[in-house]
Amino acid sequence: MSKLISLFGEYLLRLTPPQQQKMIQADTLEMHWAGSEANIAVSLSIFGDEAKYITALPDNELSRAGISAMRKYGVNPAIHYKDGRVGTYYYESGQGARPGKIIYDRQYSSLSLLQPGELKWEELLHDSDWFHWSGITPALNENTALISKEALQAAAAKGITISADFNYRSTLWKYGKSCREVMPELLQYCNVLLADVDTAKLYFGIDPDPANLVEDTFRLLKQVMPGLGTIAMTMRVQESASSNQYTGYLWHDNEIYQSRPYNIQQIAERIGAGDAFMGGLIHKLYNKQPFQDAIEFATACGVIKHSITGDFNVATKVEVETIMQQKGSGKIIR
Amino acid sequence: MSKLISLFGEYLLRLTPPQQQKMIQADTLEMHWAGSEANIAVSLSIFGDEAKYITALPDNELSRAGISAMRKYGVNPAIHYKDGRVGTYYYESGQGARPGKIIYDRQYSSLSLLQPGELKWEELLHDSDWFHWSGITPALNENTALISKEALQAAAAKGITISADFNYRSTLWKYGKSCREVMPELLQYCNVLLADVDTAKLYFGIDPDPANLVEDTFRLLKQVMPGLGTIAMTMRVQESASSNQYTGYLWHDNEIYQSRPYNIQQIAERIGAGDAFMGGLIHKLYNKQPFQDAIEFATACGVIKHSITGDFNVATKVEVETIMQQKGSGKIIR
Amino acid sequence: MSKLISLFGEYLLRLTPPQQQKMIQADTLEMHWAGSEANIAVSLSIFGDEAKYITALPDNELSRAGISAMRKYGVNPAIHYKDGRVGTYYYESGQGARPGKIIYDRQYSSLSLLQPGELKWEELLHDSDWFHWSGITPALNENTALISKEALQAAAAKGITISADFNYRSTLWKYGKSCREVMPELLQYCNVLLADVDTAKLYFGIDPDPANLVEDTFRLLKQVMPGLGTIAMTMRVQESASSNQYTGYLWHDNEIYQSRPYNIQQIAERIGAGDAFMGGLIHKLYNKQPFQDAIEFATACGVIKHSITGDFNVATKVEVETIMQQKGSGKIIR
Amino acid sequence: MSKLISLFGEYLLRLTPPQQQKMIQADTLEMHWAGSEANIAVSLSIFGDEAKYITALPDNELSRAGISAMRKYGVNPAIHYKDGRVGTYYYESGQGARPGKIIYDRQYSSLSLLQPGELKWEELLHDSDWFHWSGITPALNENTALISKEALQAAAAKGITISADFNYRSTLWKYGKSCREVMPELLQYCNVLLADVDTAKLYFGIDPDPANLVEDTFRLLKQVMPGLGTIAMTMRVQESASSNQYTGYLWHDNEIYQSRPYNIQQIAERIGAGDAFMGGLIHKLYNKQPFQDAIEFATACGVIKHSITGDFNVATKVEVETIMQQKGSGKIIR
Amino acid sequence: MSKLISLFGEYLLRLTPPQQQKMIQADTLEMHWAGSEANIAVSLSIFGDEAKYITALPDNELSRAGISAMRKYGVNPAIHYKDGRVGTYYYESGQGARPGKIIYDRQYSSLSLLQPGELKWEELLHDSDWFHWSGITPALNENTALISKEALQAAAAKGITISADFNYRSTLWKYGKSCREVMPELLQYCNVLLADVDTAKLYFGIDPDPANLVEDTFRLLKQVMPGLGTIAMTMRVQESASSNQYTGYLWHDNEIYQSRPYNIQQIAERIGAGDAFMGGLIHKLYNKQPFQDAIEFATACGVIKHSITGDFNVATKVEVETIMQQKGSGKIIR
Amino acid sequence: MSKLISLFGEYLLRLTPPQQQKMIQADTLEMHWAGSEANIAVSLSIFGDEAKYITALPDNELSRAGISAMRKYGVNPAIHYKDGRVGTYYYESGQGARPGKIIYDRQYSSLSLLQPGELKWEELLHDSDWFHWSGITPALNENTALISKEALQAAAAKGITISADFNYRSTLWKYGKSCREVMPELLQYCNVLLADVDTAKLYFGIDPDPANLVEDTFRLLKQVMPGLGTIAMTMRVQESASSNQYTGYLWHDNEIYQSRPYNIQQIAERIGAGDAFMGGLIHKLYNKQPFQDAIEFATACGVIKHSITGDFNVATKVEVETIMQQKGSGKIIR
Repeated sequence: MSKLISLFGEYLLRLTPPQQQKMIQADTLEMHWAGSEANIAVSLSIFGDEAKYITALPDNELSRAGISAMRKYGVNPAIHYKDGRVGTYYYESGQGARPGKIIYDRQYSSLSLLQPGELKWEELLHDSDWFHWSGITPALNENTALISKEALQAAAAKGITISADFNYRSTLWKYGKSCREVMPELLQYCNVLLADVDTAKLYFGIDPDPANLVEDTFRLLKQVMPGLGTIAMTMRVQESASSNQYTGYLWHDNEIYQSRPYNIQQIAERIGAGDAFMGGLIHKLYNKQPFQDAIEFATACGVIKHSITGDFNVATKVEVETIMQQKGSGKIIR
Repeated sequence: MSKLISLFGEYLLRLTPPQQQKMIQADTLEMHWAGSEANIAVSLSIFGDEAKYITALPDNELSRAGISAMRKYGVNPAIHYKDGRVGTYYYESGQGARPGKIIYDRQYSSLSLLQPGELKWEELLHDSDWFHWSGITPALNENTALISKEALQAAAAKGITISADFNYRSTLWKYGKSCREVMPELLQYCNVLLADVDTAKLYFGIDPDPANLVEDTFRLLKQVMPGLGTIAMTMRVQESASSNQYTGYLWHDNEIYQSRPYNIQQIAERIGAGDAFMGGLIHKLYNKQPFQDAIEFATACGVIKHSITGDFNVATKVEVETIMQQKGSGKIIR
Repeated sequence: MSKLISLFGEYLLRLTPPQQQKMIQADTLEMHWAGSEANIAVSLSIFGDEAKYITALPDNELSRAGISAMRKYGVNPAIHYKDGRVGTYYYESGQGARPGKIIYDRQYSSLSLLQPGELKWEELLHDSDWFHWSGITPALNENTALISKEALQAAAAKGITISADFNYRSTLWKYGKSCREVMPELLQYCNVLLADVDTAKLYFGIDPDPANLVEDTFRLLKQVMPGLGTIAMTMRVQESASSNQYTGYLWHDNEIYQSRPYNIQQIAERIGAGDAFMGGLIHKLYNKQPFQDAIEFATACGVIKHSITGDFNVATKVEVETIMQQKGSGKIIR
Repeated sequence: MSKLISLFGEYLLRLTPPQQQKMIQADTLEMHWAGSEANIAVSLSIFGDEAKYITALPDNELSRAGISAMRKYGVNPAIHYKDGRVGTYYYESGQGARPGKIIYDRQYSSLSLLQPGELKWEELLHDSDWFHWSGITPALNENTALISKEALQAAAAKGITISADFNYRSTLWKYGKSCREVMPELLQYCNVLLADVDTAKLYFGIDPDPANLVEDTFRLLKQVMPGLGTIAMTMRVQESASSNQYTGYLWHDNEIYQSRPYNIQQIAERIGAGDAFMGGLIHKLYNKQPFQDAIEFATACGVIKHSITGDFNVATKVEVETIMQQKGSGKIIR
Repeated sequence: MSKLISLFGEYLLRLTPPQQQKMIQADTLEMHWAGSEANIAVSLSIFGDEAKYITALPDNELSRAGISAMRKYGVNPAIHYKDGRVGTYYYESGQGARPGKIIYDRQYSSLSLLQPGELKWEELLHDSDWFHWSGITPALNENTALISKEALQAAAAKGITISADFNYRSTLWKYGKSCREVMPELLQYCNVLLADVDTAKLYFGIDPDPANLVEDTFRLLKQVMPGLGTIAMTMRVQESASSNQYTGYLWHDNEIYQSRPYNIQQIAERIGAGDAFMGGLIHKLYNKQPFQDAIEFATACGVIKHSITGDFNVATKVEVETIMQQKGSGKIIR
Repeated sequence: MSKLISLFGEYLLRLTPPQQQKMIQADTLEMHWAGSEANIAVSLSIFGDEAKYITALPDNELSRAGISAMRKYGVNPAIHYKDGRVGTYYYESGQGARPGKIIYDRQYSSLSLLQPGELKWEELLHDSDWFHWSGITPALNENTALISKEALQAAAAKGITISADFNYRSTLWKYGKSCREVMPELLQYCNVLLADVDTAKLYFGIDPDPANLVEDTFRLLKQVMPGLGTIAMTMRVQESASSNQYTGYLWHDNEIYQSRPYNIQQIAERIGAGDAFMGGLIHKLYNKQPFQDAIEFATACGVIKHSITGDFNVATKVEVETIMQQKGSGKIIR
């Protein structure tokens, strides 16, 4: 029987002034659709995996546009229609020294208004053998934290592989509970994790040795989440304001796999590289490819996303592999 | 001492797919700024009156863009900064037989979250000799209805002239009180009113004689709002799907003044004609011009607005007067 | 077991200068995707039916863009990848007295290069209970005529309902056989037909009585295609250069059902109205709705398409029904 | 030896807000190139005649863009480089009842700064057998009036056919001489004239009989300009705000030739119809076609120009002939 | 009583081909508004100071658009309406090795046609306690040089603080007097100056010691303009074609204050950095902030302007301060 | 008698998603016109040489747009109209690490359908004293290889100077003959050649000494093509992913002339640099300028093309010379 990857999270409309304009200069806004888990669903679908995206939206023309935007890339939408808003964010992209700027307008989204028990996880996950979520959903409010737990319990009960992304957002977590109170319990359910050093400190109070940062972070994360089978991280070294060295790392069964490093310049878009990486990683792990292949592919996904506008990584597998072969030189393909 | 016209209402961001696209076809959205009272403030300012626009907005870059959009036309913004959202609506403009479509996304706007007593009307109105509001604000929730009353009481106490627009919105009035319970009390404070027959029935249960519709509506409105000095209405006769006859009427002191009728074809935008009319009317009354002149000018404002995209009537006084002289023939001005 | 509607035809890229420009004035071209059967597939999918679109395309990024364009609306693509081109047409849209202009660049498309026997119809139609095709495919060349016949034989053998659109194109039929030699045989397989008077003459030599045009055409078509269960036509009466009266007619079991007539003005796009009509008709017949309902809905689909840019009718069922209720007046939906 | 048509006049940059925006709403302006005589040169070149356009421009990148814009359509530029500006006009196009609006910014153009004797007409006209000018050039200042006379004298001396367009512009003629003092003398040199009733009154004090307007105007014009061989006029009857009846008339040798009348609706652009008409007329007369053919073709040129954005009539001969055959119905050409 | 900063200069329309196109490739032009003093007025207004901008413009729709462009940012326009043109410049922005290119079309602007005595400086400056001008105005012609002197005398008589920018333009100064004859006298009135080494040589014949360039230039400027209280400069060191080191310097009371140096890469716009710097500087000095703070803020204003398209620095105070804190790293603000 | 440069090759429509979008993200495509020899013809014409471009196209509106695109820059089109298509390519431009991607859709172009003997070379070349072709034309099919030979024989017989560009395209040469079988014979006719090391190996099996690459390649090319008078090459050293060192080399009469090296960063377009170089080279050689000047100018043409979007190098001679003077620093020209 055909199996698939289910993902759960908030779907967001992104509105961006064109051509690096500031908001106050703009007369039009570019529409993009986003959401960490939706971004990953799009990657998986493009890479050939069947992906089901579970979310809540109001039943209107704007949602319809959003649903069509994911269908375009082959994602299977599982929409729970509910009064409320389409979560939105405004993104003024940066230029040179000027930082990009996000204005969140995601309050009162349909997803954030969900009540515990409202989503029927038994049914939603009946055809899945992988489930992905991230730290954004429990950061919205107490109910979405509870619903995340419901989903994880249902997935675990079914023996479904669970992956997560730390995805800490400092502008969320405003509902009275700290991330440290909520996240460790939820993360116990996970088999595969995309982590980062700063968030590891926030969620678990982990303090890795800077002299041995990658290895020690992996070691400490495994200590606090003994159920984890695979952990991934990316590291950036900022060589100058416009040049980053970017490398991927994967821990599995006490081995660390490291990608070749990329020098990233001329960035078209700074958003969504982590989701692109995670999409590549899940794809490779879901299809049981070798770990070295997985980290190389995932890292190249992160690299190519810096060249693509919008939150989705719309590159094909062949295009990601070209990045790996060309080592990022950008030579024209005729 | 210099006096001015204050207006109070919700300021809205309007997002519209370009070139009559449907939302599902769009990749970009045009940004316009709107709100019945803001639209009137822009008209007044362009016509040379000093206009102060009182509203509540969150303190972010999006609000800043909105404030600059009214400043551009000379409106004096009086912003009460408050957490919440920028009220938004999506407008898919119609084409031919296909109707335009509005998706409201105005819930949880900063203005709708205002608490009674939060706005200091004594101070806000200290420099005003005219105050304008509309039926949209009390339709949002109980608090905005109370705040509307606070404003009206303060204005009345100061002897400020008060104008209102019925502005009934069927998609609002969801908070437990009907418009019939709320509006009659608020409208007692008004001196100048923009009315329409359908809403007169809803607010007051008035049932005018169809054989004598305009006159009888004026008569009945004066009965239920004895304080009214001036009442205006516009009437449309739809001659065909793409052609409307449009006429303005003004009642004052038992006289009825009627504008020349216009045949409106090739409509660029169906939104904001009422506000354009009211802007023209207030301008003429505020500057104590003859009533016949007032209704002719106001009606021409309504006519020209059908040719202007966006919610604001950005036409100048000279341009409105050209409409009156050309009788809508559209001959090029070299 | 879930059943679906399969459709077979050539998928076309349409390139159009923006804003009624002539080709010689253009610096950019708008991309649309088209093809009579693809247009219908999109309608069906939006209306809630499962639609599978069978075509041949080269395996490149342009095809990928085209496939994503139909996926966006929920169509299930069944692509036979094959060397050759993406069939293309350039469309300079008309304005006022200036006629629109089509430049076909569809030669050597992958579909036109198909060999008989290359498509495995047994397998392609295994999950279908309705099959749709049109007169465009056999007009391309001898092979596509043969392949059309293969498809029809396979569908008939499986007892699948077959619908067709006459779709005569005078610029095709260049391969040595006339439409009159080819089409009558293929149309014998059909149960449901979208016909028109001029093409009926070309395909069958039918010469209906002008005094009784609709009825007599239906009668004569039934004579030459005795297997037909349902026949539809639309009639346009051109009242002036910019105003058309448009009515739909349906024949079934010796009854004729007629839609309300629409007066169509302010046309945004003259292409695709027939496909929109056929999409509405198949939807209603597939779901076994009453014939009067079917012709009213199909005709309103044709009407609303005149207001939508691009070849696809992207309107929802509710929007089509609004046209029926508003009778094409175009009043804003708030 | 190959002969050609020379034209002399001011070349103008036209800047227009896109999509019927008002200037105050615009962030971008569309660039078009214009000038009555340049517009005619483009028409002639597209129709297959060799056209040389004589003007003065400053030597900069803006002029270079303007020259390339006429070269694009095959016109042969004869540029006299001279300090000064590129004459410019801003055109806010009208919509519905709102009139279009022209802001001239043509002062101090290189052409307007020309000194008598500066252009060497002997040499400029050495390869020409037709010369065209219009009433705009002598309206600029005393020098351009004198230079017009120099050109006419040189052309007359060479026996070149001379055509003219009245082209009265009320916003010009500011230099102390009235059009009545200047134009009659210059027009004595002309063989072919595009006239209109209102300007005939201004230039010559002619007062034709309204009951017999076309014929009487022709008669009176011939009286005051006895050298004229051919006179043309177009007449508009405004049936409603959005519908014009448009007819062309030609006088030659005491015969009047009249085109079929067109009903013009849905106007894309109100500028340049007269120049399109004149381009069609000169083309037919230059190639010695019958007068009835000439007036039909010229009138259809005027009609199709209403559907084309920008000052140039970029339609081909075949397209103009299609208008004549379709009688303006606008049916798609596949 | 409320005081404000008055600025005087020529207001310019800037027209730029989009997306680094060359003029000859463009079909549209982006509209920006500019003028050294207007740019500074916008900065001041955004930073919270009251700014009045004094200029002359013709009374037309184009001027109206320009005035609304400054009003948008809160500037108070003091327009002297006068026949003439809107000064214009065309800017083809550079890309990589290709230099940007300015075509001035500013002759015969209303401001350049001003007569001495025409502006009533007593009245214009009655509410000001700071006055800013630059070397562009006296470079236009003898009258604007005289008018600059009138303004300076009036300001000096009122005891208003006067700031100036050297702003030498080699393409101006064509009217018979050299900058060396005119500028020294005018600069004697100034209290605050933005200088640069090259212009110092031109205006005063100063020849600073290259080994000690900044200090020596300050010293020599103070010698020739003993009334100066504060002098500022920026220095660029071009590290490579696409990378500049940019540092600000301030002299006051024999102290030199130096900003942190910035490495500027990926430049969106090379125009207006000096005005952005001056806007930041005047803001800090007007509000009597410490000199080190002033030079850091002014320099960060110059830096952020390189990332903003158009002549105005539309960044807020908070955004400039973020540049100072992030040291130009461009990290996204969520 | 006036002489000119004739060029022969396939003219191509290029369609590119705007702003570095991927094809799957695009709703519009930018139209450019291209073809190696057409690109050179445009350069020559802009530099002041008379250029005639010989090609075959179908007779439709798309060809008309293409012809007008070369006429715009002054090229003299010599079009052989013939059924078939307009050769097309889709170009997804790269960004950062993401490579650009070309999808050819040039099959069945009118030029590729030409039969030997169909073009009348005697007549086509009667007014030429230079002829240019490239390795793309014989790569299309056996007929275009034969036609190339016909052209070369006719040119040689007339004593016309012949230039060629190796222009190897790996995606062509599919018709059964290898480039090694075809090209050496054709290249024997050439006097001036643009070569590159990799193609030299493919066409002639040449294997130059890497330690002395430029010199040895020149030496070996001269051995196999003894008729060559002048050979040119460009060399790129990729310093990093976004930075190239670019140098031009010219061999003539046993002398090697080398240009100053340029460091190319921030590339707007990677296509057409070779043609820009060749255009500059032919211009200088045709006008008998010194060889050092020729290689400097040609190399600067290649450099500036990296900053210009579209296949044509639209820069003027003055602009190329500015690159030479500024050494690529990009300083604004006021």
